[in-house]
Amino acid sequence: MIIDPPYLIFLGDVPDALAAKTGLGIVDWRPDWCIGQLRLPGCQADAGIPDLSIAEAKSRGVKTMVVGAVNAGGVLPPHWISPIVEALDAGLDVATGLHVRLSSVPEIAEAAARSGARLHDVRFSDQRFATGKGTRRPGLRLLTVGTDCSAGKKYTALALEREMRARGWDADFRATGQTGVFISGRGVSIDAVVADFISGAVEWICPAADPGHWDLIEGQGSLFHPSFAGVSLGLLHGAQPDAFVVCHEPTRTTMRGVSHPLPSIQEVIDLTIACGRLTNPAIKCTGIAVNTQKLNESDARVLLDGYAADFGVPATDPIRFGVTNLVDRLEGFGQNR
Amino acid sequence: MIIDPPYLIFLGDVPDALAAKTGLGIVDWRPDWCIGQLRLPGCQADAGIPDLSIAEAKSRGVKTMVVGAVNAGGVLPPHWISPIVEALDAGLDVATGLHVRLSSVPEIAEAAARSGARLHDVRFSDQRFATGKGTRRPGLRLLTVGTDCSAGKKYTALALEREMRARGWDADFRATGQTGVFISGRGVSIDAVVADFISGAVEWICPAADPGHWDLIEGQGSLFHPSFAGVSLGLLHGAQPDAFVVCHEPTRTTMRGVSHPLPSIQEVIDLTIACGRLTNPAIKCTGIAVNTQKLNESDARVLLDGYAADFGVPATDPIRFGVTNLVDRLEGFGQNR
Repeated sequence: MIIDPPYLIFLGDVPDALAAKTGLGIVDWRPDWCIGQLRLPGCQADAGIPDLSIAEAKSRGVKTMVVGAVNAGGVLPPHWISPIVEALDAGLDVATGLHVRLSSVPEIAEAAARSGARLHDVRFSDQRFATGKGTRRPGLRLLTVGTDCSAGKKYTALALEREMRARGWDADFRATGQTGVFISGRGVSIDAVVADFISGAVEWICPAADPGHWDLIEGQGSLFHPSFAGVSLGLLHGAQPDAFVVCHEPTRTTMRGVSHPLPSIQEVIDLTIACGRLTNPAIKCTGIAVNTQKLNESDARVLLDGYAADFGVPATDPIRFGVTNLVDRLEGFGQNR
Repeated sequence: MIIDPPYLIFLGDVPDALAAKTGLGIVDWRPDWCIGQLRLPGCQADAGIPDLSIAEAKSRGVKTMVVGAVNAGGVLPPHWISPIVEALDAGLDVATGLHVRLSSVPEIAEAAARSGARLHDVRFSDQRFATGKGTRRPGLRLLTVGTDCSAGKKYTALALEREMRARGWDADFRATGQTGVFISGRGVSIDAVVADFISGAVEWICPAADPGHWDLIEGQGSLFHPSFAGVSLGLLHGAQPDAFVVCHEPTRTTMRGVSHPLPSIQEVIDLTIACGRLTNPAIKCTGIAVNTQKLNESDARVLLDGYAADFGVPATDPIRFGVTNLVDRLEGFGQNR
């Protein structure tokens, strides 16, 4: 799936920033792609970029309006249809990660047919994949894994890409979720793929590359999450990572959406290696990324130092302290560094 | 999904019996439903039932032609379209477990429209599921797992159902694959479900039941298969089995469709318990089911005795020696036995 930038970020009239996290994430990571935002009356989110009408966005070269907000249930509120139709009539493509297909709304399907603009339903995958083969591919791969969902896996992979590129390394973020697809303009929402093709789709996402090239692959879920572990395992096998970073939120007591306790970081390392060596016998943990938002800086540093000592790998909060130590660890990992 | 028997089993021109396992499985478990087989020139599979033309099948009362063979990738070979169209024109429904929807082939869609016959795509799930929750449900559950695909998981679960019912136990086979759905007339092809809903769909397949009721859940793939392990893990978490039986084919050296070696039975037991305890801390291995087809009877018995001693559970070849020892082991497992 290829989505053409630049973008107009549609935030609707969502009640808070959390409901607009997709849009805000795109602006964080691809500010150059985000020409403006479109907000409806009452919108309580603000991406900090110019408010533009659809006509203004069009005149400034916007190619795609991205629905960067979500309301409860992921459905499309009826009053969002009109601005979407207006964008299509102006010749903009429209992209969403909602649980409904844009083309299932007759007014939207008709508008797209009228203008020839494209509809991107990032949460749906119409692409055909082969089943995974597990054959070793050249290139270096790092996968972010988690003790839970929403533990910083996408952020960590993006931060690693940014730091590696700043050092002149050949590195690409590989998206496996909807926000990541918007940020990179390509990729697959891996949880939307038919179950038989999880690992095959991931093999497609991070194909054979130059021996010194790094893929920074966005993980999903957790091998210990009773809802999504199948996705996480197929992703691990398809990614065949040389290295993985464990992402963790230390104040959480139960996994998101269920009543199960979080696994320990050690359990995640052990099971990731036990399963991951099927497609890459050399798999190893190379870092811990912790969301320390709820700790003061001193407590955060103590926690990270403890993890680094316990697991023998660098630990950081990517947002608070950056990822230089994680990338330092990967210096000389391949042949062509 | 209701599929009307009796069936004509279409075997195409597949190169070996394994590629016709769907058709052969239906004939094994529902011989009364299988009036005949339709084979194309060069077919190397034989279900051991009369070869019938479509006209002959129609005249003998067949209601549905089941495509009981699959080629690599699950696509529909172009030369299978003509017999499918002929069947539809004769008024037979057509059912398949292929990876393409029958209705996506124009000639087939047109023939179905002409005759009013129905198209059943068992591998596609249009049903909506919730995500898995991992909450413990009453009832007893046994899952068959494997060292590989095509290692006897469905057969073993069906044999256990038959033996338990013969003893008057309250037991139901739960289908998770296309052949199982054809055999039981219900279930979900779990590998066709969107990845996010694997465990949720399995929770739906084997819901809360009476405390003494056994679900015999058909496993899929293997936790060690690089193509399908994600499906196997979601199935394990959704099934939350109290007991599992490891299915194994001892002469195979590499896993089906890939170049990876088979895991050992011990590795499968260990990883199944390590992962399965997430949703059922009491999970245990209660038996080994071995396909000894390529061994003579004496060698088979030696092998099974060795497994039983090594793993401390009964071992059998369900086809050759039945599953009485596996069911004996489950006597008194629940409260209401």
